[in-house]
Amino acid sequence: MPLTAQSRDQFTNGINVTKLGEVIGAIQANSELAQFKFRAQNDWHWGTQNEARISDFFGTSREVVHREPFSLGMDEPAVLLGADSAPNPVEVLLAALSGCMTSTLAYKAAAQGLPLDDVFSEFEGDIDLQGFLGLNPSSPIGYREIRVKFKVKGDGDEDTLRAQLQTSPVYNSLVNPVKVIVEVEKL
Amino acid sequence: MPLTAQSRDQFTNGINVTKLGEVIGAIQANSELAQFKFRAQNDWHWGTQNEARISDFFGTSREVVHREPFSLGMDEPAVLLGADSAPNPVEVLLAALSGCMTSTLAYKAAAQGLPLDDVFSEFEGDIDLQGFLGLNPSSPIGYREIRVKFKVKGDGDEDTLRAQLQTSPVYNSLVNPVKVIVEVEKL
Repeated sequence: MPLTAQSRDQFTNGINVTKLGEVIGAIQANSELAQFKFRAQNDWHWGTQNEARISDFFGTSREVVHREPFSLGMDEPAVLLGADSAPNPVEVLLAALSGCMTSTLAYKAAAQGLPLDDVFSEFEGDIDLQGFLGLNPSSPIGYREIRVKFKVKGDGDEDTLRAQLQTSPVYNSLVNPVKVIVEVEKL
Repeated sequence: MPLTAQSRDQFTNGINVTKLGEVIGAIQANSELAQFKFRAQNDWHWGTQNEARISDFFGTSREVVHREPFSLGMDEPAVLLGADSAPNPVEVLLAALSGCMTSTLAYKAAAQGLPLDDVFSEFEGDIDLQGFLGLNPSSPIGYREIRVKFKVKGDGDEDTLRAQLQTSPVYNSLVNPVKVIVEVEKL
């Protein structure tokens, strides 16, 4: 899969649809190219403060190192006993959902030949802290419901765009259960 | 709920356990205080690049504005047709999980009187792009599996710490299905 844009390449919504077609063709010929492993590490600083680092992943049958490592600090607001120096993890989860649905729309609309001019979106999710604190067994610990509103200027009707948005990997990781295996090693 | 630390307050793991106890008591007396609404907005820049913003939330029966608005840029690596200028959304999802499990451990170990010296963790999740691209109906679109490894220096045995980690709200938002309502408005 050559990855450098060529002058002949077609772009829609800033997506190289020529390369996108080549990627799809390469995966159809060899499904191993579609198997990705994404990664993060985290260091606890103290209290409610910690920092995630993202530096590499596996995809297209090889290890890939990001151009630079990315760092993402998290904290909690004062009402949750933190210093409010960074977003909290459940807010970062909404940010991940927002980025994934937005990129998904750009890719999918481009693949279907639908130019977009402007995309803005809002996310709000409900958490009942009684679940986390173990105060009410009927309260879910995670998000009970998340509401998403997209405002889109461009081609495509609302039903088409909503169907495209719902192919987002983060959206699907939330609406469907994901198997998460947790190991703990004492040092 | 007074939020300023007093000199008499007890801290474990950097968590004000005196205030934590007061928060729990206040929620037991009035469960409305436990109802939180977290929020994010997103602006599409172009192609695979977009930016989430986090500025306010609802909790403890009132609107709360963060000390400063937080911004979180996302992009895709070159193999996924981006400029690799920022982590991608499925990596940010792992970062959110890492931050939530880490803070959860700090809170819960503090509440149980278990001091922690050091916490480091690694996250790896599998995504088969055939799902996103619609090339194989049996491939899930979201994460198929996420593996989490915590390395902890401090008190508490491995089973106790793992049980605490599994009360993380982001962990529970992944292992259990979340209702996500998507609206699209054409401008």
